[in-house]
Amino acid sequence: MTAWKLSAPSKYVHSAIREDDDLADELRKAGKEIIKLSSGDPPVYFPTPKYVIDAYVEALRNGKTSYSRSQGVPELVNAIIDRYRNRYGIELEDQDVLVTSGVAEALTFLNSALIDVSDAAVILMPYYTQYPVAIRMFGGKFLLGRYDEENGWDIDLGELARILKGRRRKPKYMLITNPNNPTGTVLSKRALEEVIEIANEHRILLISDEIYDEIVFEGANLVSVGELAKGVPHVILNGASKAFDATGFRIGYAIVPGHDALSEELKHKLADYCRVRLCANTPAQYALAAAMNNRAEHEKAVSEMVRAIKQRVESAMKLLAENPYLTTVRPRGAFYIFPRIDMRSLKLRDDKEFVESLLKEKYVQTTRGSGFGAPNHFRIVSLAPSTIIGESIERVNDFCEEHSKSRQ
Amino acid sequence: MTAWKLSAPSKYVHSAIREDDDLADELRKAGKEIIKLSSGDPPVYFPTPKYVIDAYVEALRNGKTSYSRSQGVPELVNAIIDRYRNRYGIELEDQDVLVTSGVAEALTFLNSALIDVSDAAVILMPYYTQYPVAIRMFGGKFLLGRYDEENGWDIDLGELARILKGRRRKPKYMLITNPNNPTGTVLSKRALEEVIEIANEHRILLISDEIYDEIVFEGANLVSVGELAKGVPHVILNGASKAFDATGFRIGYAIVPGHDALSEELKHKLADYCRVRLCANTPAQYALAAAMNNRAEHEKAVSEMVRAIKQRVESAMKLLAENPYLTTVRPRGAFYIFPRIDMRSLKLRDDKEFVESLLKEKYVQTTRGSGFGAPNHFRIVSLAPSTIIGESIERVNDFCEEHSKSRQ
Repeated sequence: MTAWKLSAPSKYVHSAIREDDDLADELRKAGKEIIKLSSGDPPVYFPTPKYVIDAYVEALRNGKTSYSRSQGVPELVNAIIDRYRNRYGIELEDQDVLVTSGVAEALTFLNSALIDVSDAAVILMPYYTQYPVAIRMFGGKFLLGRYDEENGWDIDLGELARILKGRRRKPKYMLITNPNNPTGTVLSKRALEEVIEIANEHRILLISDEIYDEIVFEGANLVSVGELAKGVPHVILNGASKAFDATGFRIGYAIVPGHDALSEELKHKLADYCRVRLCANTPAQYALAAAMNNRAEHEKAVSEMVRAIKQRVESAMKLLAENPYLTTVRPRGAFYIFPRIDMRSLKLRDDKEFVESLLKEKYVQTTRGSGFGAPNHFRIVSLAPSTIIGESIERVNDFCEEHSKSRQ
Repeated sequence: MTAWKLSAPSKYVHSAIREDDDLADELRKAGKEIIKLSSGDPPVYFPTPKYVIDAYVEALRNGKTSYSRSQGVPELVNAIIDRYRNRYGIELEDQDVLVTSGVAEALTFLNSALIDVSDAAVILMPYYTQYPVAIRMFGGKFLLGRYDEENGWDIDLGELARILKGRRRKPKYMLITNPNNPTGTVLSKRALEEVIEIANEHRILLISDEIYDEIVFEGANLVSVGELAKGVPHVILNGASKAFDATGFRIGYAIVPGHDALSEELKHKLADYCRVRLCANTPAQYALAAAMNNRAEHEKAVSEMVRAIKQRVESAMKLLAENPYLTTVRPRGAFYIFPRIDMRSLKLRDDKEFVESLLKEKYVQTTRGSGFGAPNHFRIVSLAPSTIIGESIERVNDFCEEHSKSRQ
């Protein structure tokens, strides 16, 4: 019967973000109204702009329903090239751009293309839940750096140097997220420069997931790795989901701007991966191209959305500040809040129990920090209107009080 | 510098179907008009039905642009359950159905979930080009059975028994395609019954790719593995692309009907894979649900399409019969024609040179048989109108004459 068992790597395939969805569904079936603050899904609260939907509809009406170019339809590839020129001053060629079914697919391709069994890659804690899964899927393992909570979740450069020092077998890549999920951090230019220097020194491919690059609050300054890493092999990940408010399109992309031998080999191999699965959803690619090309409409939509998100995050932060059991670094972008839980003061075992009990007792669905590699934290998605966010945080605060050890 | 090289498995990632697209593009840029008979892409010649597009547009206008249930929106899962009940008398539950970004994604998930490094899986030659790639991506290898050209490309059961006999380490699965790509074969019920028996005897998971199940010509009878394999663990693959004439939607699905321990474990693990990448394109799922639910409209559209395809295949077959260098088994379904080339009579090295020279000299793009594991063959996609197919085959015939060894 041995032939029947599932593969060893598959045991790591799990999503902490969606693990409580079944429990939430059960509660809903029992008549409970759940406030879902676990899904980073802008269109739920900010409808995808009409001009983007119109472009999608036009593509459908014009018969754009067949397979399309595997690496992305030329219209979208050109729009991405224009976006990077206009926004970051980065010059790209067609073959540098690979359109995928979400960043998720790009991560799968990258890990398959780079990771041999027992190879390592560097990710930083707290990390997006798919990162370690994508490495493990191909028999790899991860070296865990960290963002430093004491330093506004910026990269802990000392720790990064430490885990790389004297290592005989180099990790295949180093993956950073900017702005960060789950912390909402916008990385400092200084930290980015040092990370690029480390990547260069150790000759490690640098991958930067910049899917939240347009969701940055006033005062913070988002720098793309592509602006700084000239000459150092790197990959930038991005897509329709967040800035273009279109998660359900499932259109992401990887950019490989370098012309060194590895970058060339990598972009051509990624194109092979794209060809094997034929293409990403065709009409959605035209819609994203239109979304990028209509810069005036896009700027209007995204600035309104970012302003609203900032307000929602701020109202949540205000209420969280009243909670003596939680300590929270102020987010500078994205739409996540990642409080640290003072577990020692609560009659709860860990962040998993915290999140499950909060869902069962207060009907507020969040995500456990340990799912991002950061125990004793939980992630709040702060996209809902302030009234809903406010109501939710009130419930979180009540919940903590009710489970306080100091309570009789 | 060792850290920089691509992974060993990635060298197998390549698509024979799309390998000549760049050459075709170059020729187009040089002003040549290419007849593309290399892409199994129905909407190019049969526009996706209007009622399906309307449903897609309605989903978009109704704001279905956010993330959705990872294993598929309930509307689509229910439509798939209804389809299998109505069409095949197969009873499914919600959790048996996993919606993916095309069958391609389902194959990636299945191989990741099942294949450990140096595990084997059985595929049959000629195979769809992704099958060996998907196994190799996870460090596995394939055992190659065969469809028997002498027997109308039905499964060579003797060969299958032979490759499994006395094998200490069982292959993880056995994958068949019905109707077949690239041969257009509809497998006989007897062969299917025997394959199921072999799977049961050797305790090997049976996977049946039935993406062409509605494209079957008069006189042939398509039997789903699901109708026969009760009690024997199996997976059925299908999707929107072919029967629903919507390749660019990139909506596929895997069905795992069994309730044995492996099937249960597998379907739950596949759900985990789905969760990790969040979801398939959301509005396209609603469109496919509508396509399945409107049975009258669908029957009308698919029967018209199949009638036209049959006619196109027949007109191609008639002209191919005039070519003394080619021998072709008559297809019973799908829309592929897979002639055997009498290479010994031609001044061409192999099927790769045949296909490349045909493209360069006659501007007809087909696919080399060796890409499907069957050298000395080439694949013609017979979806274009008879005039175009006719013109193409005339060019193929001229091409063969011009390269004949008997020609001075």
